[in-house]
Amino acid sequence: MSDLEVITFRPEPAQFAWTFGGAAPVGRVRPPALLELYTEDCFAGRVRGTGDLVSQVCEFPFLNPQTGPFYVEGAEPGDTVAVHFVSIEPARDWAASTTVPLFGALTATHLTALLNEPLPEVVWLWQLDRAARTCRFTARSGEFTVDLPMDPMHGTVGVAPANLEVRSALVPDAFGGNMDTPEMRAGVTCYLGVNVEGALLSLGDGHARQGEGETCGVAVEAAMNTAVVVDLIKGVPCPWPRLESDTHIMSTGSARPLEDAFRIAQHDMVHWVASLCGIDTLDAYQLVTQAVESPLANVCDINYTSVAKMPKRYLRHGADCMEGAHARLRDLAAGYSA
Amino acid sequence: MSDLEVITFRPEPAQFAWTFGGAAPVGRVRPPALLELYTEDCFAGRVRGTGDLVSQVCEFPFLNPQTGPFYVEGAEPGDTVAVHFVSIEPARDWAASTTVPLFGALTATHLTALLNEPLPEVVWLWQLDRAARTCRFTARSGEFTVDLPMDPMHGTVGVAPANLEVRSALVPDAFGGNMDTPEMRAGVTCYLGVNVEGALLSLGDGHARQGEGETCGVAVEAAMNTAVVVDLIKGVPCPWPRLESDTHIMSTGSARPLEDAFRIAQHDMVHWVASLCGIDTLDAYQLVTQAVESPLANVCDINYTSVAKMPKRYLRHGADCMEGAHARLRDLAAGYSA
Amino acid sequence: MSDLEVITFRPEPAQFAWTFGGAAPVGRVRPPALLELYTEDCFAGRVRGTGDLVSQVCEFPFLNPQTGPFYVEGAEPGDTVAVHFVSIEPARDWAASTTVPLFGALTATHLTALLNEPLPEVVWLWQLDRAARTCRFTARSGEFTVDLPMDPMHGTVGVAPANLEVRSALVPDAFGGNMDTPEMRAGVTCYLGVNVEGALLSLGDGHARQGEGETCGVAVEAAMNTAVVVDLIKGVPCPWPRLESDTHIMSTGSARPLEDAFRIAQHDMVHWVASLCGIDTLDAYQLVTQAVESPLANVCDINYTSVAKMPKRYLRHGADCMEGAHARLRDLAAGYSA
Amino acid sequence: MSDLEVITFRPEPAQFAWTFGGAAPVGRVRPPALLELYTEDCFAGRVRGTGDLVSQVCEFPFLNPQTGPFYVEGAEPGDTVAVHFVSIEPARDWAASTTVPLFGALTATHLTALLNEPLPEVVWLWQLDRAARTCRFTARSGEFTVDLPMDPMHGTVGVAPANLEVRSALVPDAFGGNMDTPEMRAGVTCYLGVNVEGALLSLGDGHARQGEGETCGVAVEAAMNTAVVVDLIKGVPCPWPRLESDTHIMSTGSARPLEDAFRIAQHDMVHWVASLCGIDTLDAYQLVTQAVESPLANVCDINYTSVAKMPKRYLRHGADCMEGAHARLRDLAAGYSA
Repeated sequence: MSDLEVITFRPEPAQFAWTFGGAAPVGRVRPPALLELYTEDCFAGRVRGTGDLVSQVCEFPFLNPQTGPFYVEGAEPGDTVAVHFVSIEPARDWAASTTVPLFGALTATHLTALLNEPLPEVVWLWQLDRAARTCRFTARSGEFTVDLPMDPMHGTVGVAPANLEVRSALVPDAFGGNMDTPEMRAGVTCYLGVNVEGALLSLGDGHARQGEGETCGVAVEAAMNTAVVVDLIKGVPCPWPRLESDTHIMSTGSARPLEDAFRIAQHDMVHWVASLCGIDTLDAYQLVTQAVESPLANVCDINYTSVAKMPKRYLRHGADCMEGAHARLRDLAAGYSA
Repeated sequence: MSDLEVITFRPEPAQFAWTFGGAAPVGRVRPPALLELYTEDCFAGRVRGTGDLVSQVCEFPFLNPQTGPFYVEGAEPGDTVAVHFVSIEPARDWAASTTVPLFGALTATHLTALLNEPLPEVVWLWQLDRAARTCRFTARSGEFTVDLPMDPMHGTVGVAPANLEVRSALVPDAFGGNMDTPEMRAGVTCYLGVNVEGALLSLGDGHARQGEGETCGVAVEAAMNTAVVVDLIKGVPCPWPRLESDTHIMSTGSARPLEDAFRIAQHDMVHWVASLCGIDTLDAYQLVTQAVESPLANVCDINYTSVAKMPKRYLRHGADCMEGAHARLRDLAAGYSA
Repeated sequence: MSDLEVITFRPEPAQFAWTFGGAAPVGRVRPPALLELYTEDCFAGRVRGTGDLVSQVCEFPFLNPQTGPFYVEGAEPGDTVAVHFVSIEPARDWAASTTVPLFGALTATHLTALLNEPLPEVVWLWQLDRAARTCRFTARSGEFTVDLPMDPMHGTVGVAPANLEVRSALVPDAFGGNMDTPEMRAGVTCYLGVNVEGALLSLGDGHARQGEGETCGVAVEAAMNTAVVVDLIKGVPCPWPRLESDTHIMSTGSARPLEDAFRIAQHDMVHWVASLCGIDTLDAYQLVTQAVESPLANVCDINYTSVAKMPKRYLRHGADCMEGAHARLRDLAAGYSA
Repeated sequence: MSDLEVITFRPEPAQFAWTFGGAAPVGRVRPPALLELYTEDCFAGRVRGTGDLVSQVCEFPFLNPQTGPFYVEGAEPGDTVAVHFVSIEPARDWAASTTVPLFGALTATHLTALLNEPLPEVVWLWQLDRAARTCRFTARSGEFTVDLPMDPMHGTVGVAPANLEVRSALVPDAFGGNMDTPEMRAGVTCYLGVNVEGALLSLGDGHARQGEGETCGVAVEAAMNTAVVVDLIKGVPCPWPRLESDTHIMSTGSARPLEDAFRIAQHDMVHWVASLCGIDTLDAYQLVTQAVESPLANVCDINYTSVAKMPKRYLRHGADCMEGAHARLRDLAAGYSA
C-alpha cells in the first residue's frame, strides 16, 4: 500500500458526470493508484422520503450521477483498465428505492410501448444497519418488515465509449456503464477495454443490495464511500467488460433481447476459457455449458445485462487471466483501510 | 415411509413417451405414493461413444424419452400435482454430451435461421465417479481434463398440456416439460398445475450436471434411477411450474424472447410473495426486486426457461406455501433408501 | 373445372376441429379436388353484439374453429399440399372484433407478464357491404365512421404438425396454422409441407379484412364461404409455409422474437431465389435484400408471423416455382363460380 | 419557391459528420428554407469496385458520413423540425452493396454472438440508369442480371439526441438517424422532435433502392444530390420520427427486439389516429388494427426499425396532421427544379 498514490475525490454537485464520454476529466491517475471516492445515489440524493417521487424531485437527464471521469495516464485504445474494488461502504444509514413510471421489467415502458395505464409511483426507504450489515425493508402496506443482508455494489462503472459516442449514464454497453450486476462488489476486479486516450473512467450508482435482474428497475440505492485500485494493462484488449474475483472469472454482455446479452457473455467466456485452458473452441463450449453460472444483472435498462461466471478451479492450473491483474491489485490493496 | 405405496417402473424401449399429452398412461398413482423410476438419457441411450453422432444414431422425433405418463387418481383441472424428488442417481458410470446441428445458444438454429455454416458435430463422453460424486470432462483437443461436482437433476418433468395440445418432450411451457433447470435436484418439490383428468405426469432427461443456460443445448446426459413422492393438492391451481426446497421457493417461466421467460417467473413470484407475506403487489414487487435470485435454466430450447428464486427466510414467518406440501412430502420420504 | 371433383362441406358445431393434428378427418380428398367450405368466425359465431364479451360468451379452448381436417389421399411426409384459394366470401353482412384481456400487441399478455391492469374488453361490430365491397367501422366513442375496403382472407390454414404434436388452432408454426397474413386471399396458392399421412388439412378464421400485424390481436372476424382447389406435389418438401400469387412468391416464418420470424422467412426466400435464378446463396441474399417486400402478418399470436414477398418479374425468366402448381390450380379453377 | 432561402452545401471530406450530436454545425437555416445537399454513400465513397472490401478500404468509425448538421434557428426542445424531401437523385451511374462481416439479419453479429464462421465478404456494383430509372443487379456467380426500379431514399436523417448523448450515424433511435426505411423518398415529409437548441439536423446514406428489412444490412448505396425544405413547428413535440406523404401518415419505432420497434410505431399511430379522428384510444386501436400497413425498415442495425403507415383517407375528413406542415412544404417546393 505504501507505494500507491492515493487520490481522494468527493464531487460537488456541479462536478458529477451524467454521461460516459463527453465529460471533462475531474482528475488524472498515474496507474496503479488508489482512489477514495464518494458516489451519490442514482437520484442525486433527491429522494429522501416517501413523498419524494422521482417524477417530481428529479430532472431528466440528471439521473445516475457519476464520480469521474478520471484520465488514466498512458491508456490508449487496445489497452484495458483494471478497477479493483477494495471497499464499498454506504455513506448514510438509509437508502431509497421506487417504482418509476414506464420503467422496470414488469411494466409497459417507453420501448415496450403498451396502452395499459402505468403503475403507481411508490417510494420505499430502506434502513441500513452498517454494523449488523443489514438492509431493512418496510412494506408500505400491511405491517411487514424484513432484514436482508447488506451486499454493497456499484451498478455503474465504465469508460468513454468507442465510435465517437457519448452515452447516458443509464445505459450499459460494451464500454461498461449501467450494468447493474450484484457481482460488482468489494473484492472484485472489473476489466474495461479502453476506447479513447486516457480511458475516462467513472463510476457511481451504489446499491446497498440488489436482486438478480433488478426487476422493478431500481435497487436499494445508496450513496457510497468507495475505494478502488486502478491499473492499466497495456496491449491487452477487452471487447466487453470482464470481472474477476478470487474464485471466478466473469464475462458480461449487454443487449436486447436478453438472449443476445446472454450470448455475448457466454461467447466471450467460451473464447476466454479456450485460451486459458489451451483447448479448442468447441471443447470450451462444452466445458462452459456444464460449468457456467449465469447470474442475470439487469432486465430493465436500455440494454439488459447477463453475466457468465466460471469457477477458476475448473480452469487449467496456473492459467493467467488478464496478466494476473486481479491478484496483483488485491495484494496492492491489502493494507488499505478506509 | 411404511404407509406409502411404492410403484417401481423401468420402461421397455417401446414404453417410452415422446410427448406430453397424447400418450396412454403406463400406470396409475393413488397419491401420495412413491415412484421408483428408471429414465433413459435424452438420446434414448444411443450415444455411447464419440463416434455416435446424434444426426446418425438418433431418429427424430424419438428424442428425450419420458418415463410415464402416470395417471394421478383424483387429479382434475384446477388442482396441482406435487412431485418431490427424493433421489436422482446416475444409472451408469458415464454420461454423454454433444453439439447438435442447428441447436444451441451460440449457433444458428432452425428459428434463428442464418446463412452461416453449422457448427461441427462433436461428442464428449464424461466419466462419472459416483462414489466421489464427480463428472470428468476430457477435451477432445489438447490434453485437458477436469473434474466437476456431480449435481444430478431432471431436465424434463411435466403433465399433459391444456388447450387439447400434445407437445414434444423437447418443449418447456406452462405444463412443465423440458425446462432444463439445475434446480430440479433431489430434495426439491416441483408443483405442476393439472390440465386434464389424471394429470398424466412423466419425467426424464437426467443430467449428471448442467450449467445455467445449457449453453450448447446438451447437458451431461445420463440415465437415472430416480425416486419421487407424488401427491395431489386439490383445488389449488398453479399456472406455471413452481419449485420448493427447504430454503427457497421458486417460480419458472418458459417463453421467447428470454425477457418474457424472466417476466413470467418474476410476475408469478411477485404475486406469490404478496400472498405469502400479506402485502400489496407493489410492496412484493419491491421486495422481490432486492431479494430474488434469477438462475437461468435453458437458453436453447423451443422456449427459454428462467427461474425466480426467493429465500424463504425473507417471507413472513410461518407462511404456508402450496399448503405445506414440500415439508409433508419430504417427511413422507424421510425413511426412504433406494 | 369439369373434371374436378367437388366436395361441399358445412360443418355442424360438433364437427369443428380446435387443433392441428389430433382430430379425426371429416372427409377424404383425392387431389386435385375443389372444396366448397363454410368456416365459422374465430368466436365460433358467439360474438353477435357489443354486449357479447369473449370472456363471457366464449369457452377456452373452443376458439378458432377449423373446418376440416381433410385427409389428402397419397400425401406422405416429404410431399407438399397446395391449397389454391378460389374465392373467400363473407357469409353474413356483419363481422365482429374485440379486445381480449391479456391478448394483443399493445398490452400485457400471459407471456409478456406485467403488473399493469389489463385493457378494457370492448366489442366492435363491423357492417359488411358485400356489393360495395366495404367494411364499415363505427367508433364506440364519438360519432366517427369510416368504410374500409373489404379484402377477405383466411387467418388460419394448416396441416397436422410434425414431431407427434397436436397444436391449438390459435398457434402458427411450421405446419401453418394461425398465421394471420392478409396475403392469404383469393387468387393465392398456399404450400404446406406434409408431416403425417393424409396431411390432415383444415382452415378457418376468415377475416373481412385485417391490417398488417393484427395489432389488437383480433381482425374483422367473419364467417366465410370459401372455395379452394387442393392438390398434392409429390416428393417436394416445404419446411415452412409458402404462398404464391400471379405476381409474387412468398415465404413465411412464425416464431418469437419477431426478428426470428423475419429471419426464417427471409432465409427461406434467399434459398428459394438462389434455386430459381441459378445463382449462389450470397448473390440471392443480395438480390432479396434489395427487392423483397416484408409484410408483417401477426405480432400478437403465440408465434409472430413475418412474410417475405418477392416479385416474380425479378426472377429468372421461366423459373418454375413448386412445379408450376399455382398456375395449374388457377387454371383448374378458372371456370368455377360459387 | 421564390421566397425560399436556398442553401447549397457540398461537404468536403473533412466536413462530414459521423454522429448525431457532438458535431459543430456546418451552417444555419432560417426556416423555412430549401437545402440543396450532396451526400456521400455509407462507405464514404471508398467502395468503387468488387475488390474494395469494407474491412480493407473503410476505417471504423468513419462509416455513414452525414451532411450537416444544420442549426435550425429558433428550434428548441419541444418543437418539431419538418424535413420535406423534394428530390433525391443519385449522383453517379453506379452504386455499391456488400456483405459486411458480423453484420446483417441472416448472420451471426457482434450482438447475436455465435460460434459459427462469419459469411464471406462480397461486393456488388449496381449499374444505375438514371434515365430509365433502373438499378441493374449482376450476380457474382452465374450469368444472371435483372433490372429493378430505382426508388431513391435516404437511410439516415436525424437531429441531435436527447439526454446529452452523441450517437453513431449507424444507429436509429428516437432522434431519427439510421432508420433505413424505403418510405423516406421524395415527396415525403419527415418530422423529428427537437432535443437541443438548433436541432442540429443532418442526413445521408442515400439508397438507389432497398428492400423492406435491409436483410443483408447494406442497400444499393449511392451518393445523392438531394433537395429538402426544412421548417420548424413550434410547440409541437414529436417523441418518435413521423413521416407524411400525400396519401399516408406514418409513425416509426426503433428498438430491439423487433416487436418493440413494432409496438412503438403502432402505439404512436394509435394515439395519433385517436387525436386526428376525435375518438377514444381503444377505438383508434381497433381502427389501426384493421387499416394499418406495417412496412419493415431495417432488421439489421443497432436498433431495428418498424413503420406504421395509415392511409389518410380513413381519417376524419379535414384532420390536420402536424399543423398542415406537409402540404405547406410541398407547396413551397412546388416550383423547385434541381
